[in-house]
Amino acid sequence: MTHNVAILGASGYTGAELVRLIAGHPDLHIAALAADRKAGMQMREVYPHLGPLDLPRLVTIDEIDFSQIDLCFCALPHATTQAVISQLPRDLRIVDLSADFRLRDPAAYEKWYGKPHAAPELQKEAVYGLSEFYRDEIRGARLVAGTGCNAATGQFALRPLIQAGVIDLDEIIIDLKAAASGAGRSLKENLLLAELYENAAGYGLGGKHRHLGEFDQEFSKIAGRPVEVTFVPHLIPASRGILATVHLRGEADQIDAALRNAYEAEPFVHMLPFGSAPSMKDTRGTNMVHIGVAGDRRQGRAVVIATLDNLCKGSSGQAVQNANLMLGLKETAGLTGVALYP
Amino acid sequence: MTHNVAILGASGYTGAELVRLIAGHPDLHIAALAADRKAGMQMREVYPHLGPLDLPRLVTIDEIDFSQIDLCFCALPHATTQAVISQLPRDLRIVDLSADFRLRDPAAYEKWYGKPHAAPELQKEAVYGLSEFYRDEIRGARLVAGTGCNAATGQFALRPLIQAGVIDLDEIIIDLKAAASGAGRSLKENLLLAELYENAAGYGLGGKHRHLGEFDQEFSKIAGRPVEVTFVPHLIPASRGILATVHLRGEADQIDAALRNAYEAEPFVHMLPFGSAPSMKDTRGTNMVHIGVAGDRRQGRAVVIATLDNLCKGSSGQAVQNANLMLGLKETAGLTGVALYP
Amino acid sequence: MTHNVAILGASGYTGAELVRLIAGHPDLHIAALAADRKAGMQMREVYPHLGPLDLPRLVTIDEIDFSQIDLCFCALPHATTQAVISQLPRDLRIVDLSADFRLRDPAAYEKWYGKPHAAPELQKEAVYGLSEFYRDEIRGARLVAGTGCNAATGQFALRPLIQAGVIDLDEIIIDLKAAASGAGRSLKENLLLAELYENAAGYGLGGKHRHLGEFDQEFSKIAGRPVEVTFVPHLIPASRGILATVHLRGEADQIDAALRNAYEAEPFVHMLPFGSAPSMKDTRGTNMVHIGVAGDRRQGRAVVIATLDNLCKGSSGQAVQNANLMLGLKETAGLTGVALYP
Amino acid sequence: MTHNVAILGASGYTGAELVRLIAGHPDLHIAALAADRKAGMQMREVYPHLGPLDLPRLVTIDEIDFSQIDLCFCALPHATTQAVISQLPRDLRIVDLSADFRLRDPAAYEKWYGKPHAAPELQKEAVYGLSEFYRDEIRGARLVAGTGCNAATGQFALRPLIQAGVIDLDEIIIDLKAAASGAGRSLKENLLLAELYENAAGYGLGGKHRHLGEFDQEFSKIAGRPVEVTFVPHLIPASRGILATVHLRGEADQIDAALRNAYEAEPFVHMLPFGSAPSMKDTRGTNMVHIGVAGDRRQGRAVVIATLDNLCKGSSGQAVQNANLMLGLKETAGLTGVALYP
Repeated sequence: MTHNVAILGASGYTGAELVRLIAGHPDLHIAALAADRKAGMQMREVYPHLGPLDLPRLVTIDEIDFSQIDLCFCALPHATTQAVISQLPRDLRIVDLSADFRLRDPAAYEKWYGKPHAAPELQKEAVYGLSEFYRDEIRGARLVAGTGCNAATGQFALRPLIQAGVIDLDEIIIDLKAAASGAGRSLKENLLLAELYENAAGYGLGGKHRHLGEFDQEFSKIAGRPVEVTFVPHLIPASRGILATVHLRGEADQIDAALRNAYEAEPFVHMLPFGSAPSMKDTRGTNMVHIGVAGDRRQGRAVVIATLDNLCKGSSGQAVQNANLMLGLKETAGLTGVALYP
Repeated sequence: MTHNVAILGASGYTGAELVRLIAGHPDLHIAALAADRKAGMQMREVYPHLGPLDLPRLVTIDEIDFSQIDLCFCALPHATTQAVISQLPRDLRIVDLSADFRLRDPAAYEKWYGKPHAAPELQKEAVYGLSEFYRDEIRGARLVAGTGCNAATGQFALRPLIQAGVIDLDEIIIDLKAAASGAGRSLKENLLLAELYENAAGYGLGGKHRHLGEFDQEFSKIAGRPVEVTFVPHLIPASRGILATVHLRGEADQIDAALRNAYEAEPFVHMLPFGSAPSMKDTRGTNMVHIGVAGDRRQGRAVVIATLDNLCKGSSGQAVQNANLMLGLKETAGLTGVALYP
Repeated sequence: MTHNVAILGASGYTGAELVRLIAGHPDLHIAALAADRKAGMQMREVYPHLGPLDLPRLVTIDEIDFSQIDLCFCALPHATTQAVISQLPRDLRIVDLSADFRLRDPAAYEKWYGKPHAAPELQKEAVYGLSEFYRDEIRGARLVAGTGCNAATGQFALRPLIQAGVIDLDEIIIDLKAAASGAGRSLKENLLLAELYENAAGYGLGGKHRHLGEFDQEFSKIAGRPVEVTFVPHLIPASRGILATVHLRGEADQIDAALRNAYEAEPFVHMLPFGSAPSMKDTRGTNMVHIGVAGDRRQGRAVVIATLDNLCKGSSGQAVQNANLMLGLKETAGLTGVALYP
Repeated sequence: MTHNVAILGASGYTGAELVRLIAGHPDLHIAALAADRKAGMQMREVYPHLGPLDLPRLVTIDEIDFSQIDLCFCALPHATTQAVISQLPRDLRIVDLSADFRLRDPAAYEKWYGKPHAAPELQKEAVYGLSEFYRDEIRGARLVAGTGCNAATGQFALRPLIQAGVIDLDEIIIDLKAAASGAGRSLKENLLLAELYENAAGYGLGGKHRHLGEFDQEFSKIAGRPVEVTFVPHLIPASRGILATVHLRGEADQIDAALRNAYEAEPFVHMLPFGSAPSMKDTRGTNMVHIGVAGDRRQGRAVVIATLDNLCKGSSGQAVQNANLMLGLKETAGLTGVALYP
């Protein structure tokens, strides 16, 4: 049975990535595409690479008849999302890709996003969308909040280790390298090719990156006590991809074993041989996470490197995976593509 | 019914691309992978991005039991291919991706490749593999010779125009921009990132590029008289993709009409609105060709720009398309992926 | 004797490039830097790479005491330039980098820029700033109009050939590849790294690019009759550089000889051995033009490839060269840096 | 007075960079260029970007008359350097850019490089070439050993902090991002543009990178006790540049103050405002180091980010700086170029 889906915010990168994935999905059909400022246009006018596809014309959200929609992907900017979702039918299944419903605690939301949440009751209802770790809740959820792409990468490296108790919780450093599309199709000087080509730079120094809110929430919950990590993201010259190098205190072999154990049956997490360094490009365009573990010359120290495609596993691929769970489909449906390399 | 295929030369870029495409193909199964120098290794040791796939171990060609193989993809280097294919069973269906069987005329082969052909009888048997134009011959063929990736791009822009008689055959200039992977995984200084990043340069100046042999053969055949084009390729800093800008004498509207007419029913050729410039990246990872036509301020002059992914539509995707035809499968099977953008 | 210069529009790429070049110039001193919207800021806040330099604070144009300025570089956006220069002292030497004074003919200006010129008397006074060809006029000029960067590249390939009468004037095709910084620090989607990385595309198809106005003016003047070229520019993934491939009718050896003859004594034009293809990166950061000539397999056809750095020889380096001429300095002063390779 | 210099190993990247820098040096003259395998060629045949320069033809080392040479730059591969320098005149001033003389202790050399040193007496004589910290020794030295480019970057971030005692010596993590040219002009698959474009990956995991030998030697010497750091380098898609993110235990304000104090009078080290992240590209082509310091949300933790151009300040620029010291020239001579941005 084919399920009708709508995509709100179809003109952004995550919207276009949803279209790409759903176009190859055996059980989902794109019934509506909304993009307020581009309503009336064809998707191929916004993204010529989608030209060969037969897609509905872009409309405003108001024009969508949600009674015909089985599930709605919401790929709108942060903050506007709260207002939009509040107006949608209360029985509509929603996978949200924004930051608006990732944090459970209203105080934490206000701390990291600078203003009170406008839909606190929905915030309570939302399930955190890291599929591999919230599978059962997601299956029964109406509103699933997709994770931050950086937050996802760090969690794939760390959650099983906190769970297994094999690392020092006070000595976690996430040094992350992120491609430009993580910032969306936003017109900022530092995202221009002329500026970012041949370049690399940290950002959000001083513990200010909002994905820290997700790390705090999730790691503290697993550990049963407050966990604060150090997180230093960098922008590198690439269009897609995140590579997180996590510096840890712990025995490398125990760390490796804990990860292998956790991910043994996971179709979307691939462990490299011990001592190997994963390459960011090896996950490009896929819903995969690649992870490598190595020790240090000093006993009791290790590094875990996790990499994924920020637009796919980090957002739109994860969203499709969650939609599969919510609709009772095969979890891997539409997500089995192989990485584009080179 | 699933067909078993073998890939000879699996460790090169076109070999890896075949694996990527066939892994998502509903009717093909990879039964054997050969790579002489890497025999014994797992494919994931050569290409970690294929790590999540369950693939046969690399073997030597001699180790393959061809009685179990329905079709063999041959992605070996030029020249060695002739020797290898001569030794394969005479009833084995073969899609060759090398340059060895592209030219019908032994004299032309010797002219462009600098030595006599070692398997002239096979050369006669081979069908030129530009699927859209040799569909019927390919369906009945045993040995199909994949085209050059540059040669394919130029032909998609030009064949219908020569056929329709709407351009001056003596005034065809193909100014082509090619990504680095067109040269394969070869260790050459000019392919190093440190050299090619921030760079661009012509190559093969003076009418020396071997793909001219294909242009000559095909265009002269269509025109019924000798046609010689000017062809100036350039290397640009990208890993995949070819963009051919073809400068022509003719009326732009007639040119546009002839191309639309020719490609109206073609699933893998997408015509942009008149006056639009296609973007190379819009075909990345797909079996699509995107084509745009524009006039000039001077009447009687026009430009046709055609772009495709050299590793996919330019070689491995084309090869799968041809295999589909040879095996009586749906021509688009396994080739419907959407471009990876951004 | 050191000359004081001012830079108006210092916050753009050509402004920053002027600062880079003048910082190493033995005879010029930066006395004032203006950038209206960023007035009050330090240059290092706009461009951290200039942090180590001791530079005046950014001011508005009104704040500059032009009585202390020997020469003014005007790197403002097109159109606003006319208004600004009209208000500057009439005896102030000006090197303008905008498009506003490149075209001699008011009708041509209106045709290519879509509105009447606001300072036609200054338009008459201005000297076209292609240093190698207007040296004497520039020496005596008060207002010099820098050329378009694409227009400069094409002219270096073509002017001596038109002058020498060795090419067919009706069959000139300029297929140009340009880096992103040619569009300035402008926030446009197609200039984002995420979009341009792995990409290439034509633009301004149909003979619409404004630099055609310069080609028409200059080539017709040399030829003594109207000359119209075909010009198809492309954007490629690089931050700096232009490579123009010029397809011609003419004898390659005569073409090569005419160029060598013209540039024999030119310090900033380097001819490669016959048949060689210049690499864009070989001129990066310099005031050099590299040119290569090759024949075709068909007699009477040739290709000339010229390359330069759009921000340096294509604009700011050219501007310094012109300032040197206007101030009676050594023409090469401050411009002898070697290309940054790799 | 002009000093004659020779460059051995002129055909590598550091050799070409030496030529670039010395071509603009007021007091040095390139009297000889040696490259054994390319002897007899002109430098412009190896590096066309040097085409405009008037340079001596490449010769073998044996052909050089060292009696006419005031100082010799040795940019040869590791290991062969020992043999070559042993044969050079004992009174010849040498700046070596290889790894052969960086480690004082023969046992340390054997540990990191896998075989005994072939010229232990020269090893003793050599002075470590980090100019800012060995200025006096370098002035009087005959043989100066240039540092590793990664090792230099890490030391600029750390030496003043160890000296000032403001960080925990057991908790130093250097997470480094390096461009491709750091590996030289070597033909390796992972350095191909097709592989490294859109990619990023760690390497040398497990504490195996040879530059650790330099860190150990230098940091332990300053601290007066053994210091072992964690060092995880990554390759990113850029041709030049290193960015080292150093994660530390210590008070950010004290760290910032110690660095400012140490570098206050240094012409080649630029401290950014507290909390700022330096951009790799801001040092491109220069002899500058840019450093930024930020705290963490957790008290007692900080990050120091240092960046430089691996081919310039990281090797050839450093070498020229050392040559200036050895020859009694102004330390900054020939090294005042501004970064090429964008």
